[in-house]
Amino acid sequence: MADTDLHEHDAEAATPEDRVQGEGRQFDEENRLKPEFVRQVRESLRDDNEDSTYDLVEPLHPADIADLFELLERDDRRELAGAITDLMSGEVVAELNDYVREDMLEDLPPEAVAEIVGQLDTDDAVQLIEDLDEGDQRAILAEVEAGDRAVIETALAYPEETAGRLMQRELIAVPDSMTVGDLIDYLRSEEGLTTEFWEVFVVDHRFHPLGTCQLSWILRTPRSVKITDVMKRDQTLIPVEMDQEEVALRFQKYALISAAVVDENGRLVGQLTVDDIVHIISEEAGEDTLLLSGAGEGDINEPLRDAYSARVRWLVANLGTAVVASAIIAYFGAAIEQLVALAVLMPIVASIGGNAGTQTMAVTVRAIAMNQLTKSNTSRLVLRELKVALMNGATIAVLIGLATALIFSPQLGAVIAVAMVINIIVSGMAGVLVPVTFERLDQDPAVASSVFVTMITDSMGFFAFLGLAVASGLVSM
Amino acid sequence: MADTDLHEHDAEAATPEDRVQGEGRQFDEENRLKPEFVRQVRESLRDDNEDSTYDLVEPLHPADIADLFELLERDDRRELAGAITDLMSGEVVAELNDYVREDMLEDLPPEAVAEIVGQLDTDDAVQLIEDLDEGDQRAILAEVEAGDRAVIETALAYPEETAGRLMQRELIAVPDSMTVGDLIDYLRSEEGLTTEFWEVFVVDHRFHPLGTCQLSWILRTPRSVKITDVMKRDQTLIPVEMDQEEVALRFQKYALISAAVVDENGRLVGQLTVDDIVHIISEEAGEDTLLLSGAGEGDINEPLRDAYSARVRWLVANLGTAVVASAIIAYFGAAIEQLVALAVLMPIVASIGGNAGTQTMAVTVRAIAMNQLTKSNTSRLVLRELKVALMNGATIAVLIGLATALIFSPQLGAVIAVAMVINIIVSGMAGVLVPVTFERLDQDPAVASSVFVTMITDSMGFFAFLGLAVASGLVSM
Repeated sequence: MADTDLHEHDAEAATPEDRVQGEGRQFDEENRLKPEFVRQVRESLRDDNEDSTYDLVEPLHPADIADLFELLERDDRRELAGAITDLMSGEVVAELNDYVREDMLEDLPPEAVAEIVGQLDTDDAVQLIEDLDEGDQRAILAEVEAGDRAVIETALAYPEETAGRLMQRELIAVPDSMTVGDLIDYLRSEEGLTTEFWEVFVVDHRFHPLGTCQLSWILRTPRSVKITDVMKRDQTLIPVEMDQEEVALRFQKYALISAAVVDENGRLVGQLTVDDIVHIISEEAGEDTLLLSGAGEGDINEPLRDAYSARVRWLVANLGTAVVASAIIAYFGAAIEQLVALAVLMPIVASIGGNAGTQTMAVTVRAIAMNQLTKSNTSRLVLRELKVALMNGATIAVLIGLATALIFSPQLGAVIAVAMVINIIVSGMAGVLVPVTFERLDQDPAVASSVFVTMITDSMGFFAFLGLAVASGLVSM
Repeated sequence: MADTDLHEHDAEAATPEDRVQGEGRQFDEENRLKPEFVRQVRESLRDDNEDSTYDLVEPLHPADIADLFELLERDDRRELAGAITDLMSGEVVAELNDYVREDMLEDLPPEAVAEIVGQLDTDDAVQLIEDLDEGDQRAILAEVEAGDRAVIETALAYPEETAGRLMQRELIAVPDSMTVGDLIDYLRSEEGLTTEFWEVFVVDHRFHPLGTCQLSWILRTPRSVKITDVMKRDQTLIPVEMDQEEVALRFQKYALISAAVVDENGRLVGQLTVDDIVHIISEEAGEDTLLLSGAGEGDINEPLRDAYSARVRWLVANLGTAVVASAIIAYFGAAIEQLVALAVLMPIVASIGGNAGTQTMAVTVRAIAMNQLTKSNTSRLVLRELKVALMNGATIAVLIGLATALIFSPQLGAVIAVAMVINIIVSGMAGVLVPVTFERLDQDPAVASSVFVTMITDSMGFFAFLGLAVASGLVSM
């Protein structure tokens, strides 16, 4: 992997404003590239004016160049890549949205992709390659320099979305016999060490981590102090097979900047740094919104076919639950024929029940995702949700009951009020218990809970309302 | 603020397993405290056995002690705080859930809270104080040491959820005339400097940031090199009034470890470090799930009254939209009396439309939150969603159309099939356009979109289906 040159960060001939990332005339107040700027680039591309395109793009940070690609149409992306080849750093490629990157790489010959791979850190290189299909992977790896290839292949041998895939192999590990002075001399004298590190790992002769040393502690300590007297012995070790969601939670919980990754024998094999983990924290926290809605990956760059197949599967599942609800209505068909007001009001009961269930489900799924909910406090949450449901149910029942009594009849008002309370309680309980059950069965509660909760809230809404109408003698069957 | 002692991190008499955070007999495989362990602590508290409680809790990391508090009942929390007073470090208090912390602090005298405040970093102290009501704030600040009080009061003068509230005042800033050697000598010799820094800020004589220096670059560079030759001039400066959501996006986008915070005159006034920002990244990414469902803050520790008031407001709003849908059904009352099958089938149309709308809305809200959607690509997204809606609509229409034709009549099958296509398209478009419109009006799309999208999908579902049934001559009005 290319080593970062210590001095590469000096901006050449940049104006002072250009040096503040994400500000200046190209950006709106929310740090997004302005539509006018994107239009300018597009026009310059369509005029085949490579120099003016280059001048426009050159002041941007790699992350902003990646954003620019995502904002352009598919064809313009290819043009742009051609016009700014020497700005197409590994960092730009690493920052690109997965779908956009995959799409762009597909058009490139394996040698060109291999060249990009050579520029990247191990973790970014793995991320780039793992999304490609196996044939492309082999073709590209064949072109990659042998040392890098071995590293990438080792990483790819770990399961997807694990620490082994995410980690950087480049790290600083030193023996526990060193002093602070020895360590600084070692860092200064060794060529080829990474400069991307925030902590130094102290290891024993078997390469087992003994402790971690923040760089600030090293800098503030006299040279003669032993490294073992500066290091922190309490540390978070990440097993190489740990799932990325779990890794993200550890970084959050223990406020980590970097962490040692160890293999099954406890040997230090890599490091994870928080700048790579923030993407995962955001992804994992945001994906529940998408999963609960049945929108799959939900990325706006996802190919049409994938979006269709993820979403239609969900709609078909919901068609199934809707049919169950319909069957309940059909069962009460005679009652509806007697009193069409039932048909008018029944969607209200189902809809409010659905909302109440969704609220509780969202709270529960989020608490599970944040590791806040365990067997120790589940019964407390259930009790709490029951109380909220009672309060919500009572409030809504009074509103809809009075309105119905005024517009239709007092008896129908009473029926809908009672049905509402029942349905909000049932929905609230379903919203907690369904995700908790999935979690106990080791299933992702965000994926499957919605279908079940919807089925319960819809069916129970219609059943409670129509059933009560019959039971109260308002209509007969 | 208390300065971190360089050597405090040496674990005293810890067994090797205890040194790996979040592992050992107290934890399940997902790094949560085991219910058995929580039960043990609870029993020991109820037996009034302070020593055994202390021994149980002592090996835990502060973040895990905070988790333990959250898992216990309200009364047990107070007992625990009493039993482990000298483990109740600022870090434990800072890691506590806001609601749990507030509840616990309310019982303490202002002097005790002031003592905790004295132990904390500025940012944590501010976070602790800002949630309390003004009277309590004043009482506590009166007990805080004058220097700390001034710092906290300055921070509280900035609006909530801005960089000014989040930042640490403690940072390392050095003049651009220094060499690497000068810097290291300065760091070693100055007493009272923070050890919580990951980058050194280089400033001019007016305290304007000129560049940023990663500690690893300093450690790898000979003493004689000028600091201006090692620093990176391109930097992300965070204005003190920047909203925390925006701050979180910058940290993510530019992979920042720390960033300089500047006041309106461009002077360096504080720093933000990524370990404080990861909480916000996770919070901001996760809150959309809760906002879209109308669950408010959605924290399982939120007081009952707050949860009720947030959720019932939403249910009442949805009651309003459900009434609109009901009015449409009422308008077609005569048609339903003629053909009760309409009442049986109409919830299916509305329900699938609702799902399709929720999917598109989730995708759009997420893209807006991630700054992926701008005026440059909105029309592309609308077109894409139209295509997905057409494909989804066609698939579902065939399924439900055929089933209806077989069970009821071919004509009713045709009516529901066409209604389904119309409704899925309308819902899909509403799911994009409603949140985009709110965003353009500078409103949070996650807060208000659901109510509008639901109203559109419900009403249009019923209207399209019942209206087509009449228009096709299947029933008359």
